Amino acid sequence: MADCIDLNSDLGEGFGKYTLGDDEAMLDIVSSVNVACGFHAGDPDIMAHLAERTKQKGIALGAHPGFRDLHGFGRREIYGIPASELENLVIYQIGALQALARSHGQQLSHVRAHGALGNLSDSDSEIAAPLARAVYKADPHLALMTLPGCSADVAATEAGLKVARQAFADRAYNDDGSLVSRRLEGAVISDPSAAAERVIRLVQEGTVKTITGNKLILDARTICVHGDSPAAIAMAESIRTRLENEGIEIRPFTEHDDWN
Amino acid sequence: MADCIDLNSDLGEGFGKYTLGDDEAMLDIVSSVNVACGFHAGDPDIMAHLAERTKQKGIALGAHPGFRDLHGFGRREIYGIPASELENLVIYQIGALQALARSHGQQLSHVRAHGALGNLSDSDSEIAAPLARAVYKADPHLALMTLPGCSADVAATEAGLKVARQAFADRAYNDDGSLVSRRLEGAVISDPSAAAERVIRLVQEGTVKTITGNKLILDARTICVHGDSPAAIAMAESIRTRLENEGIEIRPFTEHDDWN
Amino acid sequence: MADCIDLNSDLGEGFGKYTLGDDEAMLDIVSSVNVACGFHAGDPDIMAHLAERTKQKGIALGAHPGFRDLHGFGRREIYGIPASELENLVIYQIGALQALARSHGQQLSHVRAHGALGNLSDSDSEIAAPLARAVYKADPHLALMTLPGCSADVAATEAGLKVARQAFADRAYNDDGSLVSRRLEGAVISDPSAAAERVIRLVQEGTVKTITGNKLILDARTICVHGDSPAAIAMAESIRTRLENEGIEIRPFTEHDDWN
Amino acid sequence: MADCIDLNSDLGEGFGKYTLGDDEAMLDIVSSVNVACGFHAGDPDIMAHLAERTKQKGIALGAHPGFRDLHGFGRREIYGIPASELENLVIYQIGALQALARSHGQQLSHVRAHGALGNLSDSDSEIAAPLARAVYKADPHLALMTLPGCSADVAATEAGLKVARQAFADRAYNDDGSLVSRRLEGAVISDPSAAAERVIRLVQEGTVKTITGNKLILDARTICVHGDSPAAIAMAESIRTRLENEGIEIRPFTEHDDWN
Repeated sequence: MADCIDLNSDLGEGFGKYTLGDDEAMLDIVSSVNVACGFHAGDPDIMAHLAERTKQKGIALGAHPGFRDLHGFGRREIYGIPASELENLVIYQIGALQALARSHGQQLSHVRAHGALGNLSDSDSEIAAPLARAVYKADPHLALMTLPGCSADVAATEAGLKVARQAFADRAYNDDGSLVSRRLEGAVISDPSAAAERVIRLVQEGTVKTITGNKLILDARTICVHGDSPAAIAMAESIRTRLENEGIEIRPFTEHDDWN
Repeated sequence: MADCIDLNSDLGEGFGKYTLGDDEAMLDIVSSVNVACGFHAGDPDIMAHLAERTKQKGIALGAHPGFRDLHGFGRREIYGIPASELENLVIYQIGALQALARSHGQQLSHVRAHGALGNLSDSDSEIAAPLARAVYKADPHLALMTLPGCSADVAATEAGLKVARQAFADRAYNDDGSLVSRRLEGAVISDPSAAAERVIRLVQEGTVKTITGNKLILDARTICVHGDSPAAIAMAESIRTRLENEGIEIRPFTEHDDWN
Repeated sequence: MADCIDLNSDLGEGFGKYTLGDDEAMLDIVSSVNVACGFHAGDPDIMAHLAERTKQKGIALGAHPGFRDLHGFGRREIYGIPASELENLVIYQIGALQALARSHGQQLSHVRAHGALGNLSDSDSEIAAPLARAVYKADPHLALMTLPGCSADVAATEAGLKVARQAFADRAYNDDGSLVSRRLEGAVISDPSAAAERVIRLVQEGTVKTITGNKLILDARTICVHGDSPAAIAMAESIRTRLENEGIEIRPFTEHDDWN
Repeated sequence: MADCIDLNSDLGEGFGKYTLGDDEAMLDIVSSVNVACGFHAGDPDIMAHLAERTKQKGIALGAHPGFRDLHGFGRREIYGIPASELENLVIYQIGALQALARSHGQQLSHVRAHGALGNLSDSDSEIAAPLARAVYKADPHLALMTLPGCSADVAATEAGLKVARQAFADRAYNDDGSLVSRRLEGAVISDPSAAAERVIRLVQEGTVKTITGNKLILDARTICVHGDSPAAIAMAESIRTRLENEGIEIRPFTEHDDWN
């Protein structure tokens, strides 16, 4: 039974004058953050600021690279990018954040792929493999954050990377461990206390109840929470509070006893 | 009397399907290159390719950061960027190239600012200072390539950076060491043998004849040559040949005896 | 004594997933809007939506072109753009909105230049002239919205354009009719009732009290109000209410009796 | 038997300092051009220049809209764009060119979708329908250039547009009228005289020999030629010369006797 868990969230998703979500509020809730690197969102200032803030607060800093798609926020599937280009695209984004982190005495602990790049890397090994290779080349000590058992999990292991497996607090699961499509009813859990309950069970028992009512064993050391709306932040806060009330510590995955 | 000199050139100035100049030809001529980093030109693939090629050929690799101005090729003066943003903009670009270099076993030796960013940093200490700080933060062992005595030279020294001072093979100088404005007659030397002659004198005597006919002492360990047209490449080749005929070795500035 | 006035505001300043300001709230307040055209902000969907909404509500639709500077929100002064390119840049943006307007049975009535492009065109005739020519070439029936007497006002008149002169509800004026620099105390009027009072006097008397206490005659048929914060919207609402209470009608400048 | 034919080519594919192909050479060969509109290539200056040149030379001007994908040159398939956004994306690009054309006394006669947008619209009616609606809304008198019988042909007809059906001089056909995939041998015809021969037969007999040797009836009033390499230009010139030698006039499709 785990006595600690990591909470992660995607931050730094503004661009220039544009902001998205309340990063400062989320920095009080999570123990690791995934920072957009300028291709689908994010810019050097936002990245530098989050490098500094995560350093100050002892939060694990990760890169959140995405497709070159600012207008579509990296959510559009783009086909026809050669594997070598995908690799370089990811290395570029990680490297930019690494240098900005270094300039604030911070360093990266992980990478989580954003949006369509992330989704495709879950199921398509031809996307997952260059993603994993890119992370390894940028720094072999970085962990890749992925869904347990997905293509990216497999590719990361093959590439020699550590994997920080993650679960979602607010998403329903199918019996095979995949996420229920957002198009189906019940895919998203919007009740904060129900979501918190699921997270507690996940941490304490390592299981989650699937959409069909079965018990699924889920190996996850980090729980993804969202900060893109006041309601999302309220849910994340509620999850944090419930975890603390249960005596479960929220700590960066890099500081978990069984990580190294 | 110097027995070796560095020749540098700006490469990697394409973007996606677009190319500019003949990088491969220049790699046979120069001993150090400055690679565009994706803001005014360049993309991850081009950067990775040049990291690999310079590694193979023993050429010093530098970052060539510029303003976020792909359409204007970084040549437009953009006002109103806070110093902290300038710093982050430059760190971001250097970091991206650092990671791509690392992925090919290569590392950066220097930075040269591009276009309007470079020009402004020559004369404006409010641009030069954040540029120098950015380079230092990205890696204190990087050299900044600048004109001798300009604002960037001063700022780099203040920031604790080494400076690789450069001269232009094809530009006329004023008596005070500044470049003759391109708008004036005689500003650009287009005759390859005249340009080569100037470079020889610069290397052997450390002087250049100014536009008024005076002899100017010029402290330069790297000569900037261009590759953006067949004529420019021919001139660069001619300079290299003349230097070799004079027994002057073309070597990365990092390998000069008096560098470290 | 005028019995009607136009209220205008800059809308459509989002991009993709990013939003800025509350456009829908402002559509209930203003009688004409200036829509960003995709270079410093705005995108085809936002533009199309505002074309449709302004058509439905009888609001005058204008283009709000800016520099190619999404990251700097068009607020950065960019030097080195030839006059012919400035012209084409503005025609391009106007044309894009014209077609989207047409697709909703709407048409453009005016153009107001955004941010640094607007500021430069106020004082620099080398920017104002190509701006005015661009508007004329895109459609000679378009009005240019400008400060009274500025370079753009002069250039528009020379180009054969009608000018919709504007005043600011929340900005202090110097005795010469220029705006007090935002860097000086008292430059911005933040009290809604004081701002409303100024607008009433401007409409009824055609004057505004300057920062030195003098009475300035100001020829303005449209008042610029802002919607980029809840406080700005509250002020705009307050101005509208005060005008209505005084029996002053808020009507698109194109429908003013003395317009044609 | 046709006594005239249109030759079309995609021009204006540069961006800022970048150029692609030799537009000026192609303007001496073709009778209609399709101009990139700034999303996958092209910029306001290039568009304005081609508006002016086509006006001077009596060449039909068309818009060549593409996905927002400058780095991928519009060749990448991007999924997840709603139909309404696709429509606005295309209207925006057409509108920009319409205004620039107007500023040179020129007007648009047609639209041809570029790259991945064009390919998807050939086979996918969910892409073809918004494309056709966009063209109609931008101007119902514009023709859509498409492959005969493809989804875009059907959608254009349904939308009330005229269709300028096109054939490729350098591409092999399957028996069903589709193009042989570039991945298969024999897909591209590189011999200029063979290509010219095919065009002659197409114009004179309305047929083309398919890859299996069958005779395919092909209804085409415009032949697409390329200008992106010296070899492509040489082939286009050779086709033009052969057509002229056969007494076949090269004329914009809008001036064909049977067009209106």
